[in-house]
Amino acid sequence: MESTSLFPHFSFWPQLTSAQQTKLLSHTNTQSLPKGSLLHSGNADCMGVLLVQEGSLRVYLLSEDGREVTLYRLRQGELCMLSASCVLEAITFDIFIEAETPVTISRINAAVFQQIMEENIYLKAFSYQLIAERFSDVMWRMQQILFLGIDRRLACFLLEESASVQSPQIHLTQEQLAKHLGTAREVVSRMLKYFVEENMVTLFRGGVTITDEEKLRRLAQPSF
Amino acid sequence: MESTSLFPHFSFWPQLTSAQQTKLLSHTNTQSLPKGSLLHSGNADCMGVLLVQEGSLRVYLLSEDGREVTLYRLRQGELCMLSASCVLEAITFDIFIEAETPVTISRINAAVFQQIMEENIYLKAFSYQLIAERFSDVMWRMQQILFLGIDRRLACFLLEESASVQSPQIHLTQEQLAKHLGTAREVVSRMLKYFVEENMVTLFRGGVTITDEEKLRRLAQPSF
Repeated sequence: MESTSLFPHFSFWPQLTSAQQTKLLSHTNTQSLPKGSLLHSGNADCMGVLLVQEGSLRVYLLSEDGREVTLYRLRQGELCMLSASCVLEAITFDIFIEAETPVTISRINAAVFQQIMEENIYLKAFSYQLIAERFSDVMWRMQQILFLGIDRRLACFLLEESASVQSPQIHLTQEQLAKHLGTAREVVSRMLKYFVEENMVTLFRGGVTITDEEKLRRLAQPSF
Repeated sequence: MESTSLFPHFSFWPQLTSAQQTKLLSHTNTQSLPKGSLLHSGNADCMGVLLVQEGSLRVYLLSEDGREVTLYRLRQGELCMLSASCVLEAITFDIFIEAETPVTISRINAAVFQQIMEENIYLKAFSYQLIAERFSDVMWRMQQILFLGIDRRLACFLLEESASVQSPQIHLTQEQLAKHLGTAREVVSRMLKYFVEENMVTLFRGGVTITDEEKLRRLAQPSF
């Protein structure tokens, strides 16, 4: 696969001059990495902007006691701006990025990306919009998990229900789960999506099936 | 004061067409509110983009048990985009905004702001950059407070030191405090800035003075 063939799919691409396009392409390197590779840890060196050509990256925070919170995943065709925190003065917190599957990624040189961002308002708007969208998602999750304990409460409730019906299949709608937890259906819906991504449950029409009871149990334990 | 006299100070202003400038101005309403007014709570109605003409707004999160985390403050000449979450599809979490002092604020109609943002790439880039900068700051604080407990640990340490020297004045540099807490000087420096804004301590060269022991003590107690 031509390493940079995904660029033309981005909305900013046609707005770049040919010189800018050429410059971006010539400062992009593509490499393949095995599953489990750590691409970025804490406030390490600036690795530039990452473009996922194949596979999946997991972006997460790590607490001092080793607890992880997955912020989001990046899949084929998605750009990671946070790995270029050196480019964006606005970004001041530390994240970790690992290859969740074997991956092929392109790294765009941070300084070159920054220079074109300053020259081209379309690339600037695109980049900051991408960050704002990710951040909103992350803030929501941080608030639900760390501030309101919704993840722990939902995990507890599912385990109790499962024990009570003696089955991993729980026949309760998201509306009903929300009522039990005293929260909104949308909150339950988004948190269940997170549980699914973390391979702890699967969903069926009108209910939830626990697929990794041990992992759910670890989550249910208060960690503070 | 002419309610909208602050607009020309923003970098996007000269990039708007006169028609766009006129439209923004004619859909902006200015009002004064007493200290303590709650301007925005949770996922309430869309109040539009706020511009602080005078005074100070506090933006915060509220947990289910009533615990607050101040995200940031907005002062004269600053714009609040989060109050216009209806404008920005990217914003999906709930915040509270209160007047910390008597305030005069201008509200820009959300639909009009959104329309001009779609027409004008400069306003779009400006808006998303502002959000990205706020979010980064907020993420950092959320991580330090909720994930690493730095606020609680620093509060505990200051109280213990103060008790040991029998004085509210603690003669330890930020470098020394960081070593005691096993973290970076920059982390201590930014957290102390937060403590100062919350009126719990003041700083002097080479040390910290506790000004509200009771508030610091509440913070030092584990809330999980």
